[in-house]
Amino acid sequence: MKIELLPIGVVKTDVKKVPRHWTISDAEGTLVIEEQYTEGVKDIHAGQRIVVLFYFHQSPQFTEDFLVQVPLQGPGQMGVFSICSPVRPNPLGMSVVEVLGIEGSIIHIKGLDMIDGTPVLDIKPYRERD
Amino acid sequence: MKIELLPIGVVKTDVKKVPRHWTISDAEGTLVIEEQYTEGVKDIHAGQRIVVLFYFHQSPQFTEDFLVQVPLQGPGQMGVFSICSPVRPNPLGMSVVEVLGIEGSIIHIKGLDMIDGTPVLDIKPYRERD
Repeated sequence: MKIELLPIGVVKTDVKKVPRHWTISDAEGTLVIEEQYTEGVKDIHAGQRIVVLFYFHQSPQFTEDFLVQVPLQGPGQMGVFSICSPVRPNPLGMSVVEVLGIEGSIIHIKGLDMIDGTPVLDIKPYRERD
Repeated sequence: MKIELLPIGVVKTDVKKVPRHWTISDAEGTLVIEEQYTEGVKDIHAGQRIVVLFYFHQSPQFTEDFLVQVPLQGPGQMGVFSICSPVRPNPLGMSVVEVLGIEGSIIHIKGLDMIDGTPVLDIKPYRERD
């Protein structure tokens, strides 16, 4: 089964060196969502947290050499599914960011760890376990 | 930019009616990851929580009629990016589940909201903001 996706928008940020993970980021930027999806983002509002799924568009092709990697933070080599490396069998990223505001289909966010130009695939409301 | 992904495994569960969301689920099942990725899951262990990205393989084709939907829980119609509907421009799902145990590339989990046969795309460690 081959799965085909199309970006719904793109990350824009002036931050040149984004933090390595959203859990430690205060970096700001915008999610520039395509205008055809404006109705779909209309209920996103300032102050809420959202889950952003995105595509690591600059990652090299995954090979079995990347099944185990040495993360930037950590005691040593780890299986790829236990770390947040952008080099993964499916190069998908997931970050939780804070919404600062929204204008049409442009969402201003804080706490990003994606680089400028990153394709956005989906946005979901952030939920925690009851 | 067209993005192509391949499943890394599949969800198996005997639960016929899975809860509508992982935040309220105690349902159990397994992530049957392909053997070629066994080294990549070796550091996943019982007791931890993991993020599972998956593909809503039974969703109908997205059209603009689905930009706004009435969620099962909620006061009325909402933009698709503010709800967890499986009918989305890119039909990607994200759930946080508890690991009960792992045998090779078979991960036993609790708290799932995916139906039997759901293609798994990625697994990440669960993190919260510092």
